[in-house]
Amino acid sequence: MKTKKEYQTYCLDLDGTVYRGTEAVEEAAGFVQRLLQKGIEPFFVTNNASMTQQQLKDKMAGFGITAKKERIMSSAIAAAKYIKRWYPGRTVYMIGSDGLDQALRQEGVERVQEKADIVLMGIDRNITYDKLATACLEIRNGAVFLSTNQDLAFPSEKGFLPGNGAFTTLVSSSADVDPVYIGKPEIHMLEAIQHEYGFEKSQMVMIGDNYDTDIQAGIHFGIDTIHVNTGVSRMETVLEKKQVPSFVIENLGFWEV
Amino acid sequence: MKTKKEYQTYCLDLDGTVYRGTEAVEEAAGFVQRLLQKGIEPFFVTNNASMTQQQLKDKMAGFGITAKKERIMSSAIAAAKYIKRWYPGRTVYMIGSDGLDQALRQEGVERVQEKADIVLMGIDRNITYDKLATACLEIRNGAVFLSTNQDLAFPSEKGFLPGNGAFTTLVSSSADVDPVYIGKPEIHMLEAIQHEYGFEKSQMVMIGDNYDTDIQAGIHFGIDTIHVNTGVSRMETVLEKKQVPSFVIENLGFWEV
Repeated sequence: MKTKKEYQTYCLDLDGTVYRGTEAVEEAAGFVQRLLQKGIEPFFVTNNASMTQQQLKDKMAGFGITAKKERIMSSAIAAAKYIKRWYPGRTVYMIGSDGLDQALRQEGVERVQEKADIVLMGIDRNITYDKLATACLEIRNGAVFLSTNQDLAFPSEKGFLPGNGAFTTLVSSSADVDPVYIGKPEIHMLEAIQHEYGFEKSQMVMIGDNYDTDIQAGIHFGIDTIHVNTGVSRMETVLEKKQVPSFVIENLGFWEV
Repeated sequence: MKTKKEYQTYCLDLDGTVYRGTEAVEEAAGFVQRLLQKGIEPFFVTNNASMTQQQLKDKMAGFGITAKKERIMSSAIAAAKYIKRWYPGRTVYMIGSDGLDQALRQEGVERVQEKADIVLMGIDRNITYDKLATACLEIRNGAVFLSTNQDLAFPSEKGFLPGNGAFTTLVSSSADVDPVYIGKPEIHMLEAIQHEYGFEKSQMVMIGDNYDTDIQAGIHFGIDTIHVNTGVSRMETVLEKKQVPSFVIENLGFWEV
């Protein structure tokens, strides 16, 4: 395990790190405050594709955290940027919610209802058979298959509900094509941040509670990682992994900036 | 390969064997006619769970085939019988269409919207997020997970549309529980016929076009099988399999009764 070090670019996961569902993670606001006092504007990196940057900013504000909209990298934003960068001018058939809809508008990506170059899936609580059927048909007709994230389930007050990864699995199994996932543990969100701002990887760190998404994304991208024990993965379990994070802390209060 | 023989119980697949979508398979009507003339009332064994026995009977009538309603074994009928036999008195949360709805009524199975003992999935063109979420929650709370069939896709005039197997995969991946499938290649439909009528396996034969479902079901159940070259699996491919069918014929016109 390395010793503590200073970074220029802090990438913070949201759920489990900054908040837990509708509750704040107590130590997060102070941590962000300390970063801002040092002149460091952090990035917020979330697999959430249903909320817009504004909605996420407002949610954090409710927990006393000041976030700049353009520093919020959701899997929806990253997907739209990915399409603009790698498939410029191509049309998209989208399944998703406000967050994905607005991200595509923001990047000027054209949406179509048929003959799409790309099928892009994000969570959609108003999903229908026809939407899923269209996705399958378009992919079978050769459309590129992208999905915001592979989360199979997410917690709610009722229990674990099916996530976008489960719906993506439906389309993938039926159309017999594997998707490209944008969200963590894939590196696309971190890569988008680095690409846009020209950061050095050695100056970047990914902080999160989930070993399988947050920490894996950081490790795959080749940057330092900090695991916080405030969410999904327990510290003991994380320490038993073959590839441990650069740092393991109880919560963000333990990190001196 | 065995030589031709006489059977008492003919189990015929429907789509690809008796009809292809909205068209008749020409030789099927004559074949059924010859069976009836010999006093043999065939069974029709289909993974289709959306249509009722009456709807399937009417469809076959349109192709000149006389079928007795009670000899039509759909995966919906088989699922309802399976529940009645193995889980008597238990409640069911159902996702499905007319065929499954009526099958459960016919067997007197009680349906509930929550706290179900069993979750039963069949194709539902009016699927919603809430239905799928309820299925996941009930299964996570311990409900037995049954599904009519594992067909990932089915042909339509538009192309291949997602089948019940794909929706079942969604729930299975999200709730992290494997379902029990009722339809072919599982043996439950053939087993239900044998159980109800007390047939000898040596007197039964399964006839179908699809090696992976029809023929596999027959092989697993331990009865003779006849592959017809009028649907999904090509004869050449079938003959290369490790376990070949008992007989391989071009179409039902080639089988003397």
